[in-house]
Amino acid sequence: MDIIELAKRRGFFWPSSLVYPPIAGLYDYGHIGTMVKRKWEAAWRAFFLGLDEYYYEISPAVIMPEQVFQASGHLEHFVDPVVRCTKCGHTERADHLVEGVLKEGFEGLPPAELDALIRQHKITCGKCKGALAEVGVLNMTFPLKAGTGAEARQAYLTPETAQGAYVNFRQMFDVARKRLPLGLAVVGKAFRNEIAPRNALVRMREFTQAELQIFFDPEKQDHPRFAEVAKHKLRILPAGGKEAQDAPCQELANRLFPFYAYHLAKIQEFFLEVLQIPRERFRFRELSPEERAFYNRLHWDIELDLPSLGWKEVGGLHYRGDHDLARHQEVSKEKMTITEDGRSFIPHVLEISLGVDRNLYALLDVCAQEEAGRAVIRFPRGFAPFDAAIFPLVNKDGLPDQAREIKQRLQQAGFSVFYDASGSIGRMYRRMDEIGGPACITVDHQTLQDRTVTLRDRDTMGQVRIPLQELAKALRSFLDGVALEKLGTPLAKSPSRREADDE
Amino acid sequence: MDIIELAKRRGFFWPSSLVYPPIAGLYDYGHIGTMVKRKWEAAWRAFFLGLDEYYYEISPAVIMPEQVFQASGHLEHFVDPVVRCTKCGHTERADHLVEGVLKEGFEGLPPAELDALIRQHKITCGKCKGALAEVGVLNMTFPLKAGTGAEARQAYLTPETAQGAYVNFRQMFDVARKRLPLGLAVVGKAFRNEIAPRNALVRMREFTQAELQIFFDPEKQDHPRFAEVAKHKLRILPAGGKEAQDAPCQELANRLFPFYAYHLAKIQEFFLEVLQIPRERFRFRELSPEERAFYNRLHWDIELDLPSLGWKEVGGLHYRGDHDLARHQEVSKEKMTITEDGRSFIPHVLEISLGVDRNLYALLDVCAQEEAGRAVIRFPRGFAPFDAAIFPLVNKDGLPDQAREIKQRLQQAGFSVFYDASGSIGRMYRRMDEIGGPACITVDHQTLQDRTVTLRDRDTMGQVRIPLQELAKALRSFLDGVALEKLGTPLAKSPSRREADDE
Repeated sequence: MDIIELAKRRGFFWPSSLVYPPIAGLYDYGHIGTMVKRKWEAAWRAFFLGLDEYYYEISPAVIMPEQVFQASGHLEHFVDPVVRCTKCGHTERADHLVEGVLKEGFEGLPPAELDALIRQHKITCGKCKGALAEVGVLNMTFPLKAGTGAEARQAYLTPETAQGAYVNFRQMFDVARKRLPLGLAVVGKAFRNEIAPRNALVRMREFTQAELQIFFDPEKQDHPRFAEVAKHKLRILPAGGKEAQDAPCQELANRLFPFYAYHLAKIQEFFLEVLQIPRERFRFRELSPEERAFYNRLHWDIELDLPSLGWKEVGGLHYRGDHDLARHQEVSKEKMTITEDGRSFIPHVLEISLGVDRNLYALLDVCAQEEAGRAVIRFPRGFAPFDAAIFPLVNKDGLPDQAREIKQRLQQAGFSVFYDASGSIGRMYRRMDEIGGPACITVDHQTLQDRTVTLRDRDTMGQVRIPLQELAKALRSFLDGVALEKLGTPLAKSPSRREADDE
Repeated sequence: MDIIELAKRRGFFWPSSLVYPPIAGLYDYGHIGTMVKRKWEAAWRAFFLGLDEYYYEISPAVIMPEQVFQASGHLEHFVDPVVRCTKCGHTERADHLVEGVLKEGFEGLPPAELDALIRQHKITCGKCKGALAEVGVLNMTFPLKAGTGAEARQAYLTPETAQGAYVNFRQMFDVARKRLPLGLAVVGKAFRNEIAPRNALVRMREFTQAELQIFFDPEKQDHPRFAEVAKHKLRILPAGGKEAQDAPCQELANRLFPFYAYHLAKIQEFFLEVLQIPRERFRFRELSPEERAFYNRLHWDIELDLPSLGWKEVGGLHYRGDHDLARHQEVSKEKMTITEDGRSFIPHVLEISLGVDRNLYALLDVCAQEEAGRAVIRFPRGFAPFDAAIFPLVNKDGLPDQAREIKQRLQQAGFSVFYDASGSIGRMYRRMDEIGGPACITVDHQTLQDRTVTLRDRDTMGQVRIPLQELAKALRSFLDGVALEKLGTPLAKSPSRREADDE
């Protein structure tokens, strides 16, 4: 299915400022996409902030002073190798260009070696075949000046929400608890001037991250609730391995350490149980020392197998040691050491990092299906933009008024409900299928006689009749996962409810 | 009370990246501030999106291409008059400088006239008394380049969320409904390179707006539910007036138009009933044609009288006519006219614009009070960071375990609960008062005997005893506004519960 086309047509997302020539890597969310994004973020908060009493959310500014990125290393290291055509001026990622020609992966190769490959294989501009200039590097931060004249300050848009947690660690430690572990979460925007944004929400220049930085005592590598996950089987692809395998969490705790393994288990639980990603589409990928950044002592990517793109990284669990706080202590001269149990030390950081937009793309991609005569997004019921849609079977005979009244009652009971009366019933069902609404309620002439409505299941297209006074309760049960057939009497398909041919 | 000091000490907000020299006008929210901000935003969404079935939220990118701001006029008109010292290089707002010397308001005066005043009154640099250069203008947008080399695109951080709604109008109109009125809300960041940011969250360089752009048919100036608000008395300061007065909404509808007056009434309801701002601290201020921007046909500011700062603008209702869509049609060549009821026209825009950060500052300022021996933030019960705090009276004898168990049960029942056992009971009460938590539950030795706890009201400091099995229900009633005395037997103050002297 063409996810990008569906996303635009149904109100999920589309290229930003779309009445103008679009800037690559920027997307706007429509009303449907915004509702799903907010539900995803709420689920993330409920799950990850719920892991500990002292995991908190904070909201730092996205414009940060230059010193932050001197400390973090972004000014020096946050670069991509680029090569410019001397003829047409087109600039592209040098590694991507070489990969495309030689059909081999070269990510992470130093610019000089990429340059040597270009000369050796006589590689030319991908656009005009012109000669290429020497491979250089481009820093991916967005610089800007705050203030003006002599008082202007050099600043940058943050390329990751993590820095906002690190610079606030000391203040939050003093305010919140004065004990470890302390978790600081940020759900916010990050900005990277990518040379080659691609795959819609997967590689963007402006995007949303949901990150949790856990500051902990490196001498306390256990987790008080590790026993709860010890027997969980985690789906992993070890460094250098070819095939994903199931590994008992206890085994990973022994090889890595329990505090790390506990959070691996919880991340898998979030993906498989909360987001309901099929198990075979999920894996952790362990990065080898050569693959991971120098400051990461452990780095496991979270990968999903997407129908449209294959395996894609959607997040990671990173053990960053004391790198971040030590660097900020060095540059800022503010003390980041704390004293606990008679020892003074710089806390270590375990980072759970998820890209929100690429996770939404992945969820949409995994849940979208094409079946005889219809496209349907099988979102988990809790992630649909609306809990239910309500339609009058025809737009007359008092049915619309009755439908609106039911809508209002359901809204007062806490449901998000969409009202539609703008087409044939078949067309309205299909529209709801395409935004992933799990339930459709139809008001028909029988409703006026016996105060019952039909409830339709997006996934099976089955329908049952439900008395109005039991509707809220039935809908709640349905959203909680109860099968439709347990909620009422199944309907035989009648001509008035044919779906495929009723446009 | 020193709001800024309290905000930092208790986890609301503080200058951004605070381990480095701060950039003026940037603030980070701590965990307490983040919780209140999220509650405020949720209340805004529930109220304003609830005004109409077709008022939707969207989430546009904050980086937008240059063409957007050519169309909006920001590149040309979004400037402040500035003057630079020829000796020390200090740059300041020319109007503020002249105002400070002449003790008169000059906002909006053209640069040439400000320059004339500076020469006439021999005004010198506010910092070093050096001679001032000619008054110029500074554009307040933050420019940046997206991409690199020949393919780089000039872009800007959006200075208002409104533009994201205007450039998406056509797409959302086609996707969502194809009928007016259509409301597009954005709760998101905006960026302005202010010369002189000040008053903490009141004038920032990076801030959050909650804006609703309502696209409507200018020939339909009525509102279907106007009768519901016709008799409301609105608190207004008419253009040129000196004193606020009460005006019946019907009268305003006659003078302006009903669709506008309806939204004035609803805005006042949000401030007085949802946010519970005292009536005498609220007013609309009508701007005269000279005061308002040329594209605004009507512009009423929302002002609050803040204990620390006096009357401050926290939002506005702006009737912008067809200015925005007509300009985007002109620059983009994309058709913004729609056809309805046989007429083709460009929809008009009514904008409800609220600054989230300055509203949070205002709420904190209005709710903060100092009383004998304590500071207390009397947040409306729904805007407190936590619904309740739970404390063991002493940190032993099994009381902490009992308290945590109760905490868990209340959380499962949907309450946000804070557990604390880090000090004397008096100190824990005072800490909760200072973050505005409405209810404190204390577990004491009697709890172990008769399964009751005490419930304390932040505002009155009164306490009642409640059986555990009725606690969730009592807390719900309390948060809904029921007085404490109706929920249980009042306690006489006992030595173990002295508050003021129990540190």
